Amino acid sequence: MRILGVDPGSRITGYGLIESDGRRSRHLASGCIRLPETDLAERLGRIYREIGAIVEDHAPDVMVVEQVFVARNPASALKLGQARGAAICAGVVAGVPVREYAPREVKLAVVGTGAADKMQVQHMVRILLGMDHKPQADAADALAIAVCHAHTGLNPLGARVVR
Amino acid sequence: MRILGVDPGSRITGYGLIESDGRRSRHLASGCIRLPETDLAERLGRIYREIGAIVEDHAPDVMVVEQVFVARNPASALKLGQARGAAICAGVVAGVPVREYAPREVKLAVVGTGAADKMQVQHMVRILLGMDHKPQADAADALAIAVCHAHTGLNPLGARVVR
Repeated sequence: MRILGVDPGSRITGYGLIESDGRRSRHLASGCIRLPETDLAERLGRIYREIGAIVEDHAPDVMVVEQVFVARNPASALKLGQARGAAICAGVVAGVPVREYAPREVKLAVVGTGAADKMQVQHMVRILLGMDHKPQADAADALAIAVCHAHTGLNPLGARVVR
Repeated sequence: MRILGVDPGSRITGYGLIESDGRRSRHLASGCIRLPETDLAERLGRIYREIGAIVEDHAPDVMVVEQVFVARNPASALKLGQARGAAICAGVVAGVPVREYAPREVKLAVVGTGAADKMQVQHMVRILLGMDHKPQADAADALAIAVCHAHTGLNPLGARVVR
């Protein structure tokens, strides 16, 4: 099963693609889309096109994103929402189901504790996927979401559709 | 010049297409996309596909949206942002430039005062576009944004790229 994790952001959108049989997973591709300081429409178009190209190239079985509970303020929530909308569209328009997990679930699945910090997540993603280098921070977050789905997605109650 | 106004929302997205020479404008098409109570990905995909189909059918020269200043709270800002991201993507991916106006500018252009209420906007949109029936509320908002661009878009300082 191929799982594409996406961590959308208004400035950087991370992505991570893994292959997993539910027990062992391996890294296929990951990276981050750094958005230029152009106008919003161009930036959203860039997220949509780049995630769309990854979906087309690698044909993932599912796309997973992190659930957003609360953003710091309405302005940043709007920005995050726009980026998230563009990324989710790229998956759903290509016919890929989109699922989401809470940040705590992702940390629990990857590190074993819901209170893990970013460094621990980055470290464990590298170990779990047998990568020979530490993934870039935004790519690591995206890979962690994908690993979370690999570990818990087999349980039909584990994954949720995005709300 | 064909102008597509879009008023994105997480439950209803209004759209309105007009043709204008900058002085006289006429109604071409308008309506609203009512989103089913399905999961978010399906709803965003629906906005993207339906706005995409309108863009494909009518080939507008520009797409215009209302600038969002502040949403009531982070949760609603996130929802609005996701819908806005999907709608803007549909325009930019089809190569249509996307511009935005502040709500006050839209009211000023359509009614003549930045403090107009929704009923006045709906009424004036009908008059200005020579429509034989009152447009539905969300469609009227979208048509108003299009009319605003028709009236002020000829001034190169009038329209702004979305931020």
